[in-house]
Amino acid sequence: MMELKGKVVIAQAGGPTAVINQSLVGAALESRKFPQITKVYGALNGVEGIVNETFVDLTQETTNNLEHIANTPSSALLSTRVKPDAKYCEEIFKVLKVHDVRYFFYIGGNDSSDTVRIVNENADRADYEFRAIHIPKTIDNDLVLNDHTPGYGSAARYVAETFMGLNLDNRSLPGVHIGIVMGRHAGFLTAASSLAQKYPDDGPHLIYLPERVFKVDEFLADVKEIYDRLGRCLIAVSEGIRDENGQPVAATLTDHIEKDSHGNIQLSGSGSLGDMLSDLIKTKLDITRVRADTLGYPQRSSISCISDVDQHEAREVGEKAAQFAIWNKVDGSITIQRTGYYSVDYQLVNLEKIAAKTKVMPPAFINTRGNGVTDKFKYYLRPLVGSSLGNVHRLRAPMVEKILNV
Amino acid sequence: MMELKGKVVIAQAGGPTAVINQSLVGAALESRKFPQITKVYGALNGVEGIVNETFVDLTQETTNNLEHIANTPSSALLSTRVKPDAKYCEEIFKVLKVHDVRYFFYIGGNDSSDTVRIVNENADRADYEFRAIHIPKTIDNDLVLNDHTPGYGSAARYVAETFMGLNLDNRSLPGVHIGIVMGRHAGFLTAASSLAQKYPDDGPHLIYLPERVFKVDEFLADVKEIYDRLGRCLIAVSEGIRDENGQPVAATLTDHIEKDSHGNIQLSGSGSLGDMLSDLIKTKLDITRVRADTLGYPQRSSISCISDVDQHEAREVGEKAAQFAIWNKVDGSITIQRTGYYSVDYQLVNLEKIAAKTKVMPPAFINTRGNGVTDKFKYYLRPLVGSSLGNVHRLRAPMVEKILNV
Repeated sequence: MMELKGKVVIAQAGGPTAVINQSLVGAALESRKFPQITKVYGALNGVEGIVNETFVDLTQETTNNLEHIANTPSSALLSTRVKPDAKYCEEIFKVLKVHDVRYFFYIGGNDSSDTVRIVNENADRADYEFRAIHIPKTIDNDLVLNDHTPGYGSAARYVAETFMGLNLDNRSLPGVHIGIVMGRHAGFLTAASSLAQKYPDDGPHLIYLPERVFKVDEFLADVKEIYDRLGRCLIAVSEGIRDENGQPVAATLTDHIEKDSHGNIQLSGSGSLGDMLSDLIKTKLDITRVRADTLGYPQRSSISCISDVDQHEAREVGEKAAQFAIWNKVDGSITIQRTGYYSVDYQLVNLEKIAAKTKVMPPAFINTRGNGVTDKFKYYLRPLVGSSLGNVHRLRAPMVEKILNV
Repeated sequence: MMELKGKVVIAQAGGPTAVINQSLVGAALESRKFPQITKVYGALNGVEGIVNETFVDLTQETTNNLEHIANTPSSALLSTRVKPDAKYCEEIFKVLKVHDVRYFFYIGGNDSSDTVRIVNENADRADYEFRAIHIPKTIDNDLVLNDHTPGYGSAARYVAETFMGLNLDNRSLPGVHIGIVMGRHAGFLTAASSLAQKYPDDGPHLIYLPERVFKVDEFLADVKEIYDRLGRCLIAVSEGIRDENGQPVAATLTDHIEKDSHGNIQLSGSGSLGDMLSDLIKTKLDITRVRADTLGYPQRSSISCISDVDQHEAREVGEKAAQFAIWNKVDGSITIQRTGYYSVDYQLVNLEKIAAKTKVMPPAFINTRGNGVTDKFKYYLRPLVGSSLGNVHRLRAPMVEKILNV
């Protein structure tokens, strides 16, 4: 096979993660090793940077600074919410061609894999030799054909450790405490709160996921049962929970619903779902101390809470993208396959198999009542959150005999 | 001086911190070294545990488990919001006396120092030899006569690192982003967000503190100026910001205002202040992408983000309490004094000098416009958040020349 000489373009799309720059740096450094790669460009703001030709020359970036950037959360090339249509993809291709770009690596969720697919079709039609690879990332862990996705492990670690703290806080000053977790369709991130359950009465005591219908009556009954038994209750709720009609519960709250460019209503960036559920409990159950925390954007941008396993894998999917494209001359989407407990391998799959599909929690990961997770899920999750996970401890000292209150 | 033989009681009060158990363990282990200490008890739920005689015998706790607990956030002895009156303090004294308790160490904020003072007066009146020490803790950093308080450094680290992430996120997907930070009267914790300002255009671009009157018009003008200049704006807002009449802005939001046992309105545990400010910006400035995160309870309970300096100092104030009481036979409140950059020493001050007083940010720490902090504050803060603080990096690669869009 002839070597395909030309430039590489790398871009990042969608919500950032704590490790998305590992993939960028993996793809950039690996690409720089090949003599047939004339330059490695980064497009600013995803596909917008391609159409506008706002490229930075990553060939001229120091390896030292790239390694620092790999450890910095959020997209160093900045991001975009633009979901290109056929015409936009044509524009992308036009720019790539004029710059003699022969390799395109797009780091993003399933929308991004679709963009890669359409741009690739443009190249095919123009008979322009071109390799395009989708590099997965999403804290939601909702890409099909992947055991899990880069970004999820760190966000899951953040959620798990945050709930460890909330559980301790709720235990020391009892009441009902609600934590709202990101995740529009898939409950994987909310379910990660279960790693905070160390001692038998540790919370979260209840976990509500978008995969199960959220029924207000059952919710209130669940909370009452826990609160009556333990004198406190810690609850993890996915921002994406839906009612019997499939409507997001969050959408029933506001008159002015904001929609993004993909037609999705805004779930994050507001505390209203947590506040609504708080009010519901205060009113219907007559419990006074009810608090809600919406975990918000720190879930995907925290610098304090990164999974080393997630970092390594995010790095490798970037490296593999360069290897598949430059050595093997194939297109596709990199996927993570679990090969042991715990080991992984990377496989390339056809782009159309990933695009516009959503993976949700399998039934075996959710308990029968639909308000918690199974041990099978914890077994699945544990290696992903990495080493040195936070651990909490309790006093075990014996009680002293009373003298006055006997 | 005769040695005063008898038991020690340690208790924890108020909002937990990430390092409050360091103080507990410091006081317990140090007390256990003295032969005249017959037992070391821990009272569960602060003063409630004394009145109800729910003591655990910390003399029988393993040193190994105590060391694990020292590294666990939130009150291992559980907490209380009870602010005892004179009669309650009499009850406390009655129980302490009947158990032959001669030393009382109470870990808490300025309300707790007042409790210690009143219990001590009961002992004096009864001519009962008794040593009582207040051990400081508060994430708010609002105790007078202290350079800073244990618990603040870790919470400040949490706020700083969270804003580092929010700044990266806001840069990659621009818009206006608001972060609401704990602090009813003192802005120290909100001001800690300033450590996220690394590059010249890094946020938070605006910081609003309870020490300055919050004027809606000035706020909107500030946001507009930043947004027009940078295309984005990250804002840190204290939950305790007040209007011209001294009313908390948060209190103007809801009809049903919840008050705690101290008569304070509930500020934390709701996203409503952030949501209100979001709506204000969307409506008045016509900016569409506006998000709010309320940092909430993780600020005081995070296991992911603890300052080693804060840990050491929290440990030492506990140890010093035992030493002052058992060796020096004095009462009072332990304070932290800064002796160099960076070194500290601990001094005992009279309880009445601490009780029911609140320290706020000095004018030299706040900028003239009242929407940011000074370098003097950053110089003050930096050592407190500890070693290995998160650090973010940017690409410095040169731009590529355009071909089509010239």
